[in-house]
Amino acid sequence: MIDTLVEKIKKTNAPIVVGLDPKLGFIPSHILDKAYKDYGKTLEGAAAAIMEYNRGIIDATHDLIPAVKPQIAMYEQFGLPGLTAYLETVKYCKKKGLVVIGDVKRGDIGSTSESYAIAHIGSIDVGGEKIKVFDEDFATVNPYLGTDGIKPFTDVCAAENKGIFVLVKTSNPSSGEFQDRESEGKPIYQYVGEMVDKWGSDLIGKCGYSSVGAVVGATYPEIGKAMRKVMPKTYILVPGYGAQGGKGKDLVHFFNDDGLGAIINSSRGIIAAYKNEGYASFGEEGYADAARQAVIDMKEDIAQAL
Amino acid sequence: MIDTLVEKIKKTNAPIVVGLDPKLGFIPSHILDKAYKDYGKTLEGAAAAIMEYNRGIIDATHDLIPAVKPQIAMYEQFGLPGLTAYLETVKYCKKKGLVVIGDVKRGDIGSTSESYAIAHIGSIDVGGEKIKVFDEDFATVNPYLGTDGIKPFTDVCAAENKGIFVLVKTSNPSSGEFQDRESEGKPIYQYVGEMVDKWGSDLIGKCGYSSVGAVVGATYPEIGKAMRKVMPKTYILVPGYGAQGGKGKDLVHFFNDDGLGAIINSSRGIIAAYKNEGYASFGEEGYADAARQAVIDMKEDIAQAL
Repeated sequence: MIDTLVEKIKKTNAPIVVGLDPKLGFIPSHILDKAYKDYGKTLEGAAAAIMEYNRGIIDATHDLIPAVKPQIAMYEQFGLPGLTAYLETVKYCKKKGLVVIGDVKRGDIGSTSESYAIAHIGSIDVGGEKIKVFDEDFATVNPYLGTDGIKPFTDVCAAENKGIFVLVKTSNPSSGEFQDRESEGKPIYQYVGEMVDKWGSDLIGKCGYSSVGAVVGATYPEIGKAMRKVMPKTYILVPGYGAQGGKGKDLVHFFNDDGLGAIINSSRGIIAAYKNEGYASFGEEGYADAARQAVIDMKEDIAQAL
Repeated sequence: MIDTLVEKIKKTNAPIVVGLDPKLGFIPSHILDKAYKDYGKTLEGAAAAIMEYNRGIIDATHDLIPAVKPQIAMYEQFGLPGLTAYLETVKYCKKKGLVVIGDVKRGDIGSTSESYAIAHIGSIDVGGEKIKVFDEDFATVNPYLGTDGIKPFTDVCAAENKGIFVLVKTSNPSSGEFQDRESEGKPIYQYVGEMVDKWGSDLIGKCGYSSVGAVVGATYPEIGKAMRKVMPKTYILVPGYGAQGGKGKDLVHFFNDDGLGAIINSSRGIIAAYKNEGYASFGEEGYADAARQAVIDMKEDIAQAL
């Protein structure tokens, strides 16, 4: 799957992933009103609005980008109807030819991680029938439990040609509390990065990168630079660009000399672009066109920085 | 909610939580066969079998125990039907008077953790309507992202009288890879434990314990002993008893002198007891009675140890 992702990045010339993290506050009122009229102010109504909103964004941007990253929490908060919208979003994006990175940040002891791996990138065996479940292409994984929480995911990656991105250094302000703690001269995130390099060593694709990627926040460019060297064959998923404060020039260090090795996420900066001053002229009704323009501008910002 | 949990522990005299972690391999064939007959070998069939199996366990044990801990991964792997069974299990347990600890191990950057907190222990606002979603009483949370990933959960705990258990030292073999790394003379899990104590300091119930609990594995009793002192007002959820190797005598150190402060989880040792030699005489059909006997025996094992 890492080969597919890299091919699509090359083809679109866009190391960009659009974060499909819908909040009701982002959704234009004409979509919300219709959904509430059809389903009431219910979880079903919210889910219908999210799905309609997502379709607009996906239709308007899918030809420009290689991948999307739906954040499952934004769907899970609407319960079963929300998770139905998550599944429909995954399916719709795949039908449009996009690589889907499920931002699920799961992770548990071995036997439980196995179930999460099955749920998101594998197949469940029901009485001998093999059934795909959420079937994203990649999933994000939390490393706090160590190798036996990761191995079930890498096993599924190998068996089903999928991938994961492991949290190494997250983009949020307090990520340093535990991740930056130094132990024998190295921060914890570096130990995680070294393990990511190791976990992926048997899963190197034809493109030269491994199916075990890492998450390193755009908000910490110096750490990106250091981790780039620690994990030379690791694709880095970089959140925190745009709304969280990361800038194009901060991103250079996350890439290798081949111009590959990183994929930059933007969520609300794209999907709610119409709410930003620079795109206000699109108006609510033009939210999808605003998203398209924001992708074009982001692509340019990154190209200039590189 | 911590007060309710402590009351129920005192009333049942059982610091025990039953892990409702159903695997198809645990489910007796008469239940599986009926579900497959009704729904086929599908996700719906698997979910129906899980729900029937859970009802049997809950009916047979609910009067003996204060709480249950469904592991959401075991349901998530069966997709939307599985998550429907999860929600039904939560509701059924609450109707039976049990405290429900959703073992979801969620955790993300602040704005995303807020959505997870809403999903599991809070309410979502849909156009002004406040709707409960999965509505567990407690949720387990991963601390890797630091305070801003935890605060949305503690805010919801305060607003909705709920609780969380934060992973401090997990029960699995490789938990030490990152959690045990020493930084300035203390392991990472201790820094997490100190933060758990702090995060809970404004959420102390009438019982003297806080709504911010911790997870420390029974498989590391010496660490339990140390963490008991670091987090004196923290309830410790202790997984790893039974099938993972933790013994009754290992548990003493997790409790305070008041005989409180810890709740011990057993999952397959209870719910699949009939598969163990000691309970084989119950047979498949008697799986629920075997679970009841296993709870009685576990209660005795812990009482003797204390």
